[in-house]
Amino acid sequence: MNENLFGGLYKLLAKNQLKELKDELSDMAYPDIADFIMDLDDDKLAVKIFRILSKDISADVFAYLEPDRQSVIVQSITDSEIGRLMDDLFLDDAVDFLEEVPANIVRRVLANTDKETRDLINRFLKYPENSAGSVMTIEMVELHDRLTVAEAIKSIRRTGVDKETIYTCYVIDDKRHLVGTLPLRRLLLNEEDTRITDIMTDDEQLVFVKTMDDQEEVAALAKKYDLLSVPVVDTEDRLVGIITIDDIVDIIEEEATEDFEKMASLLPSEDGYLKTSVFSHAKNRIGWLLILLITSTFTGQIIEGFEMQLATIAGLTACIPMLMGTGGNSGNQASTLIIRGLALGEIKMKDFFKVLWKELRVSLIVGVILGIANYLRMLGVRLLTGDNVTDSVILVVSLSVVAVVIVSKTIGCTLPILAKALKLDPALMAGPVITTLVDAISLLVYFGFANLLISM
Amino acid sequence: MNENLFGGLYKLLAKNQLKELKDELSDMAYPDIADFIMDLDDDKLAVKIFRILSKDISADVFAYLEPDRQSVIVQSITDSEIGRLMDDLFLDDAVDFLEEVPANIVRRVLANTDKETRDLINRFLKYPENSAGSVMTIEMVELHDRLTVAEAIKSIRRTGVDKETIYTCYVIDDKRHLVGTLPLRRLLLNEEDTRITDIMTDDEQLVFVKTMDDQEEVAALAKKYDLLSVPVVDTEDRLVGIITIDDIVDIIEEEATEDFEKMASLLPSEDGYLKTSVFSHAKNRIGWLLILLITSTFTGQIIEGFEMQLATIAGLTACIPMLMGTGGNSGNQASTLIIRGLALGEIKMKDFFKVLWKELRVSLIVGVILGIANYLRMLGVRLLTGDNVTDSVILVVSLSVVAVVIVSKTIGCTLPILAKALKLDPALMAGPVITTLVDAISLLVYFGFANLLISM
Repeated sequence: MNENLFGGLYKLLAKNQLKELKDELSDMAYPDIADFIMDLDDDKLAVKIFRILSKDISADVFAYLEPDRQSVIVQSITDSEIGRLMDDLFLDDAVDFLEEVPANIVRRVLANTDKETRDLINRFLKYPENSAGSVMTIEMVELHDRLTVAEAIKSIRRTGVDKETIYTCYVIDDKRHLVGTLPLRRLLLNEEDTRITDIMTDDEQLVFVKTMDDQEEVAALAKKYDLLSVPVVDTEDRLVGIITIDDIVDIIEEEATEDFEKMASLLPSEDGYLKTSVFSHAKNRIGWLLILLITSTFTGQIIEGFEMQLATIAGLTACIPMLMGTGGNSGNQASTLIIRGLALGEIKMKDFFKVLWKELRVSLIVGVILGIANYLRMLGVRLLTGDNVTDSVILVVSLSVVAVVIVSKTIGCTLPILAKALKLDPALMAGPVITTLVDAISLLVYFGFANLLISM
Repeated sequence: MNENLFGGLYKLLAKNQLKELKDELSDMAYPDIADFIMDLDDDKLAVKIFRILSKDISADVFAYLEPDRQSVIVQSITDSEIGRLMDDLFLDDAVDFLEEVPANIVRRVLANTDKETRDLINRFLKYPENSAGSVMTIEMVELHDRLTVAEAIKSIRRTGVDKETIYTCYVIDDKRHLVGTLPLRRLLLNEEDTRITDIMTDDEQLVFVKTMDDQEEVAALAKKYDLLSVPVVDTEDRLVGIITIDDIVDIIEEEATEDFEKMASLLPSEDGYLKTSVFSHAKNRIGWLLILLITSTFTGQIIEGFEMQLATIAGLTACIPMLMGTGGNSGNQASTLIIRGLALGEIKMKDFFKVLWKELRVSLIVGVILGIANYLRMLGVRLLTGDNVTDSVILVVSLSVVAVVIVSKTIGCTLPILAKALKLDPALMAGPVITTLVDAISLLVYFGFANLLISM
């Protein structure tokens, strides 16, 4: 969908040729129609366009709209229109929408849905955030374990229209226990009189989650087993829903975004950057900054204890930012690799000593190269500026660089794994936390070397 | 798959009960069998287990193995076994494998495949890394535009077994031009004599990529349109392959990992953390650390120019780490949000002024709160430690905190968008680059306030 086509739509809108506009829109993909409705500056216009959409696609388009526009639309349509909209929406989309809009809209919407849907929605709204239950949908294909291939295909043809996916079918027994899964592909490529229990995936190969499992677990299983949907069972192993791959892709993006945010000392935000208010942005950022400001008192105290030497030995103070920067960046490199490795399941707790041994060797190589580079740099600066930095100061700073790299990489790889061991989120042990710790240790190392090597 | 089950497998292996082991394995899912083979310490044992797998699943399991074990296996099996393995592998898995193993193995493998496959593989190996061509597969369902629903289903039943997915079919004309897509679902739910051109998705709704498009583009389309596979066409719009959702999920993870690495001033690595050698790790890390070390000469110079005041006014030096830390963290928060927003397509270039205006307001709130907190903190420290930091120094430091937060958030939101405008990767403008810039500016601001407000 290119911008030019939106141009054409705007033209029709300007001329008020609604009939032609409706025709144009009905040829477009749902996400593109939603993009156009989101692109409109005026809420009233957005409602007007939404209402000219033909009835059979309006719910599909609605599911792709942002919550603010969804609210506006629901506030502007009639009760019976709301009823039909809620009927046509997949349950997971309806729940997504109701989770985001104000309470008065939720009340009005629920008042206009039939009792069955209302009860379902209420149950879904009660699942904890980020649980499998909160993201699942109930529109799956269930097949009874008595059926043959031909009967199963007939049943799918009859009921499939309203299902979110028909590509993986779920086989249940009389008590609704999940007993197997059956890809539509396998149904189609088998003989008509084959019993589905003979070709379904069962036992050890059966992959599922419980309603209260974390959505991260769902994403991990779908990735590992290349699934198009993951079944969800209740505490008694009865099938209650499925999570489809399009929602799993969203979960993967969401979890990565959360890690990015945590690693930059931000509280995770519910909405995207532009949708989040200035006040929420400030709230998400202030916490960690305050903590880091207060803990910086320690580095301040370390420097104050060394203030006399800093004041009398030329060049010592000037190198503090470089040392702290090198330490922070080195530690951050290590922690980022470990946090990501843990998140992707590539690094396990039992690999700790392997990781530590690797980091020690890497930091030795990197530290020595940086130390030599720093030695040459400071010699160069002295040559160019004629400052009175002594050879011993240059030596102290360069040795400190080596030590700081080693220390910071060790801390950087240890903290995330330690956090995981303590059932904390490894992503919280990223940049800022490590930097603060590394800052203090770097200064102690630096001043230690200075005391040892420079005759006072 | 739990660890206990592996325990059972190891037991059978120890007793050399290969028949029972084979039966156990054949009940397991391919990724789990691959996990078990990867879990074995000994290469010879791994080959032995791989060879007892029944012929119809060995290629499926092979595709889930890591490259190092794949190499070992290929080196240990006969030429005819290699030939069959390559025949059974999906083309994209075969190419993935050949991209990772040493050249001598590639030669031996290609020598044992038929000419047609060899030519195909050679063509695939030539696509640039991360292009759509390099990740696509050719095992898709193509339907001629003359077919009816019944004929199409028959054709799928006949040819579907070897296709990577049959859930989205691609409609082509006589010249192999892609003219439409058709979900299997729509085929099944329509009347048998319907012409497929009447129910396929075409024209404006047709979503596809070109072979040379970046894989990021593929992921973005799949996410936006909730696709199970994305078709790939050549420069003349002829269908040449598809990219399936399981590979798209991998692309999404890969791109996120790359951004994490770039934002932590690392060169992106090919393999996971544990697979990467110490030397490669060092090489990926040293570049940015060297650059940042050298640019820190500027902050050093700024401090040297102010060395006299720092030596005589108590408390000024001690606050340098806190100020630089606050600046770095504030800038990092802003840049992370913007980089992620750009990556997810939520923030566009045209939003720059909206973003800037938001960051200015956020940084004012955050800056003022932090400034006040710092004022109280320094008063508290003076009370507790009895240091001789004057009121004017406390005022200078607190005002600097406010200014540094505002400056660093402005830089943090501007640089990634600027990078995007210059067609550079926004993720390169993260933490370390911003910290270095912010460090220098923070010091200038700090010393500026100090000169203004403290009577020398």
